[in-house]
Amino acid sequence: MSSSEKVSVGIVGASGYGGMQLVRLLSDHPQVELTYLGGNSSAGKPYAELYPHVGHRIKMIVEPIDLDVIASRCQVVFLGLPNGLACDLAPQLIERGCKVLDLSADYRFKDLDTYQAWYKTERTDQDTNAIAVYGLPELYRDDIRRAQLVGCPGCYVTASLLALAPLFKQGLIQPETAIIDAKSGTSGGGRQGKINLLLAEADASLGAYGVASHRHTPEIEQICSKLASQDIRVQFTPHLIPMPRGILATVYATLRDPGLVRDDLLTIYSAFYRAAPCVEVLPNGVYPQTKWACGTNLCYLGIEVDHRTGRVIVMSAIDNLLKGQSGQAVQCMNIMLGWEETAGLPQLAFYP
Amino acid sequence: MSSSEKVSVGIVGASGYGGMQLVRLLSDHPQVELTYLGGNSSAGKPYAELYPHVGHRIKMIVEPIDLDVIASRCQVVFLGLPNGLACDLAPQLIERGCKVLDLSADYRFKDLDTYQAWYKTERTDQDTNAIAVYGLPELYRDDIRRAQLVGCPGCYVTASLLALAPLFKQGLIQPETAIIDAKSGTSGGGRQGKINLLLAEADASLGAYGVASHRHTPEIEQICSKLASQDIRVQFTPHLIPMPRGILATVYATLRDPGLVRDDLLTIYSAFYRAAPCVEVLPNGVYPQTKWACGTNLCYLGIEVDHRTGRVIVMSAIDNLLKGQSGQAVQCMNIMLGWEETAGLPQLAFYP
Amino acid sequence: MSSSEKVSVGIVGASGYGGMQLVRLLSDHPQVELTYLGGNSSAGKPYAELYPHVGHRIKMIVEPIDLDVIASRCQVVFLGLPNGLACDLAPQLIERGCKVLDLSADYRFKDLDTYQAWYKTERTDQDTNAIAVYGLPELYRDDIRRAQLVGCPGCYVTASLLALAPLFKQGLIQPETAIIDAKSGTSGGGRQGKINLLLAEADASLGAYGVASHRHTPEIEQICSKLASQDIRVQFTPHLIPMPRGILATVYATLRDPGLVRDDLLTIYSAFYRAAPCVEVLPNGVYPQTKWACGTNLCYLGIEVDHRTGRVIVMSAIDNLLKGQSGQAVQCMNIMLGWEETAGLPQLAFYP
Amino acid sequence: MSSSEKVSVGIVGASGYGGMQLVRLLSDHPQVELTYLGGNSSAGKPYAELYPHVGHRIKMIVEPIDLDVIASRCQVVFLGLPNGLACDLAPQLIERGCKVLDLSADYRFKDLDTYQAWYKTERTDQDTNAIAVYGLPELYRDDIRRAQLVGCPGCYVTASLLALAPLFKQGLIQPETAIIDAKSGTSGGGRQGKINLLLAEADASLGAYGVASHRHTPEIEQICSKLASQDIRVQFTPHLIPMPRGILATVYATLRDPGLVRDDLLTIYSAFYRAAPCVEVLPNGVYPQTKWACGTNLCYLGIEVDHRTGRVIVMSAIDNLLKGQSGQAVQCMNIMLGWEETAGLPQLAFYP
Repeated sequence: MSSSEKVSVGIVGASGYGGMQLVRLLSDHPQVELTYLGGNSSAGKPYAELYPHVGHRIKMIVEPIDLDVIASRCQVVFLGLPNGLACDLAPQLIERGCKVLDLSADYRFKDLDTYQAWYKTERTDQDTNAIAVYGLPELYRDDIRRAQLVGCPGCYVTASLLALAPLFKQGLIQPETAIIDAKSGTSGGGRQGKINLLLAEADASLGAYGVASHRHTPEIEQICSKLASQDIRVQFTPHLIPMPRGILATVYATLRDPGLVRDDLLTIYSAFYRAAPCVEVLPNGVYPQTKWACGTNLCYLGIEVDHRTGRVIVMSAIDNLLKGQSGQAVQCMNIMLGWEETAGLPQLAFYP
Repeated sequence: MSSSEKVSVGIVGASGYGGMQLVRLLSDHPQVELTYLGGNSSAGKPYAELYPHVGHRIKMIVEPIDLDVIASRCQVVFLGLPNGLACDLAPQLIERGCKVLDLSADYRFKDLDTYQAWYKTERTDQDTNAIAVYGLPELYRDDIRRAQLVGCPGCYVTASLLALAPLFKQGLIQPETAIIDAKSGTSGGGRQGKINLLLAEADASLGAYGVASHRHTPEIEQICSKLASQDIRVQFTPHLIPMPRGILATVYATLRDPGLVRDDLLTIYSAFYRAAPCVEVLPNGVYPQTKWACGTNLCYLGIEVDHRTGRVIVMSAIDNLLKGQSGQAVQCMNIMLGWEETAGLPQLAFYP
Repeated sequence: MSSSEKVSVGIVGASGYGGMQLVRLLSDHPQVELTYLGGNSSAGKPYAELYPHVGHRIKMIVEPIDLDVIASRCQVVFLGLPNGLACDLAPQLIERGCKVLDLSADYRFKDLDTYQAWYKTERTDQDTNAIAVYGLPELYRDDIRRAQLVGCPGCYVTASLLALAPLFKQGLIQPETAIIDAKSGTSGGGRQGKINLLLAEADASLGAYGVASHRHTPEIEQICSKLASQDIRVQFTPHLIPMPRGILATVYATLRDPGLVRDDLLTIYSAFYRAAPCVEVLPNGVYPQTKWACGTNLCYLGIEVDHRTGRVIVMSAIDNLLKGQSGQAVQCMNIMLGWEETAGLPQLAFYP
Repeated sequence: MSSSEKVSVGIVGASGYGGMQLVRLLSDHPQVELTYLGGNSSAGKPYAELYPHVGHRIKMIVEPIDLDVIASRCQVVFLGLPNGLACDLAPQLIERGCKVLDLSADYRFKDLDTYQAWYKTERTDQDTNAIAVYGLPELYRDDIRRAQLVGCPGCYVTASLLALAPLFKQGLIQPETAIIDAKSGTSGGGRQGKINLLLAEADASLGAYGVASHRHTPEIEQICSKLASQDIRVQFTPHLIPMPRGILATVYATLRDPGLVRDDLLTIYSAFYRAAPCVEVLPNGVYPQTKWACGTNLCYLGIEVDHRTGRVIVMSAIDNLLKGQSGQAVQCMNIMLGWEETAGLPQLAFYP
């Protein structure tokens, strides 16, 4: 595909933060023409009514979700809907010839039983699910290149997996020792009026939630198990942090070989991510700040080894709405369409 | 100048927030090659030591300030130094043929007596000052186009003037009634270790400073007086707000004609800024949030008329580090070089 | 009333932030026994379900609102309900012998037409309204002492009036020049799930709202008019600030006598508030931070005169939930019951 | 000692956040008279120059540090100085008959070799160190009661130990599995102008520091080893959180007995802290928010068991400046003097 002809792209579910980031990224993307914005609750409204600050650039109206209309206007469709809705739409869009990138949990699980157990949703789209590719380019770039349907992982999982992948893939850690202490800005909770997400409640405070029960756990385990070629259980604890954006995952695991030092790990990580333009392994003794990643599609990794305890500690920082959501989906689209992997994706943070 | 050949650009004073934003904007600018970063205190250091998150993109070393080196390598030079230093460097850079954009206060005043009175600095560069152009494109675009030296206004002044200019220019208000209540994020205080800028002090709090004495007052008055063709005094009160970035100026003034309504004012403002790609006049009843501007070079203006009191209230929101500083300087450079005015300048906010 | 016998106190509407602050203040008050918590939506729930952190101290259950039960158990009743509900309950509680302190707007207006015009609520309790006292102790201490029903002013109004009262009372300013630029933390919006109050939206941002139309305007004008003995119009503009608590009102007005200097004003304010234990007039050149007031029932006033423009600028900082709401109500109760005015009211801020 | 006669108390090192909290707590303490404030850099200044908001209550001048003066005026002395200074003063104050509570690290280590290795300070006060008691009342109440010198633990250590103590004391966990992921507000970094503590840098961001090398590690290990009667190594990782105050420690450990369930642990913790008025064990499924503790001397503990991984997760929230510093010192003083343990210590948070 020549870069001179633009690809028509639509977004179903454009009203949330994920959708809004997609609108922003895609309207600035040099090879994309944004041709459709769809939604249920906001159908008929100018998009600028939802987000007044984009009014000078985005003149589009949110349209009702009509599959024929979408397919007639879009070569590529992003789905930014709540869990359990994409599995209805995706099969029909694929049938109509669209390439589909889903931001929900619906196409992240090879094993639909696991999905159904954690998400309490019946699924009847086994065939479609079977062709879905897991949208983490750093691990599945080749599969994504050939995919028609990509289920993009979310923020916690992306930060966690990019920290853990080299360790599990290369058998460097004792498999049952991985602990992920994750910290997220509040936009991860979505654009909805929940009391605990109010500034008056969430600001100047900090707490854990979903301890020992968060449903991102099985998703992380699914991929780690594949990487390790054995069943893996991880400890995953999310925390809500008083900031709008950004995730830090602090990952702990016990090294199999207590003789490994930090330099060894840095070498291993740098090699593992050599071809990954969206992962930055930080030099010796530098630990990432989430703010370094915010506004970009990058994952910053900082690595430390504690010779007193025999553990490796990996810190992984991303923008939860970009590399942890919409940016990652755009990265996947770039790969699917044979474009530069980072096309349209900012590389330098909104900082300070 | 054809857009295919890149212009070589340098930054003197790259360590502060202004310099850092310039580094970011210029390294992403399609027609610019960043060829020099200079500073005193950080000379010899890799730039990424100051800002680790840019290490993957910016491999440059901060160099000592040597005018011949700068002139040999840069067609355009940005000066991001404390007040009172640019007036030493600019004359010599201009002599060496560079175009110069200064971010400090040094070249903002036609009347050097006023400068010297408020900034307590002796000036001997009268000739250079005489050719300096005030770098607010919305008012001085034509002068900037022909300028070799531009003194760019800062954050408070930019937000204030863009709100006030149509009122003074068209004689709509009683001249002595203008009050600017301005609110700024703390990055306006610079990257320096001051107690009052600590998160522990400044977060969850709010206060005024420099009441009746801030030195941006005479700068605002200088331009308003020119617009109004009479001596103008304004009331200017800055406040420190618990956020890193953004400025809101809430401007009050009494209308000469109490019969004017909001729609009249919206029409006047829209016409005044019709050719200004970095000013957005918001529709009826929409008031700007600073966050809408953050990450962009835009100024959002919201306008209200209070028929009970006969006043117009204009709210002006910008990113203090972009339209209020580095972005504005890049906008001026674009104009000086005959480029698209918004080249290299983001148009959609980092939001939420 | 001897200080050894405790007075029984109840709260109707205990689930919001105002109610919660009342619970905290009253449960620590040395002369009070908290005997009743009532509410509609949360009736039947342990109070600690609403606010888990108080569970070790507050074991009470929220009860349905039953006037006989309340009157049988409470000598004093605080009403913390939405506007338009207190005017139903207060007459019946007074009939049953209770002293009543209302935190809503219902009993703040002598002129019920004004109330009805701005609050769109029919009122049939003219007689009760006639005996209501305006609960700003610094202006109406003597009336409060004798009152059975007090309508306590809210946060914006309290901050504004304490800044303006000496000016209007003593005829120091040109009457139509008063402008109040007010800035509030987001808890002023209540404990409800509104999108604009989300941390993801409100953090790192700032904007005005209710410009030229906020209904605290007529309340401020009512009191200023009485103080000035003439009809007064003020300009009032509220802003939402990215912090949970605190209000700053920056007040501008043109002095009648341009020869007045800051010291004169400081003397006048100090004299005006000499007997006011909850107002602190700051010394020369010190301007208040909202954080200084947070956690206390104090109002800090900073005063400046601009001899260039002939204006006085008064900055007024309070905790919107204490001196701006619940603390003020407790202060009124103390006065009604003949106690120390500051009993049970913290005097030193939660700082930093 | 009868509660009617007040004890004279002084503070050496009153200018930092710890000192300021002591000033606040002690000036409100019913049994204390604050008779001396001392410091080096601020000697001679009114205390209200450092903290203007206390000017209406604290009229004291900061005095030079003169041991005879201190001893003549104070029965109890709090030392709030940087590490390495208290070990000079404490022996001389004890000799002069004062009871001493030190907030620095100087008297927290029984083994001075450990102190010297981690704090790089020579010590010659072995005898004094030998009589120092570790100021964590929940573990050493009886020793504190008889102590003349108390070395109070700081914020990270207090939050960590209160979470870990029951586990180690009762042998419930595999000893080498304890991981403490700790998150602190920025006031923990002190009132000093560091770039990384600026609001512009620290707000809206999050990162780890001191990974595998923080010197609170050996202090935690010292106490855990005593509790477990064996050498213990813990993993301790501090993070800086964008908020002024509060600490959350999320503690992970593998249970020895995989059959233990959450209810068992809740029972054990409740029993362990039955007599501890400053520890609140939260009910089933409730996890602490730091904001619940802020402004109080409480530690809130939330407990979860993950049957999938066999780990216990304990979340511990305190106000870093109160239970994590000054409040704890006051709690220790109360015990030393035979007073109510919580005298002068707030029990309900500054919330929201």
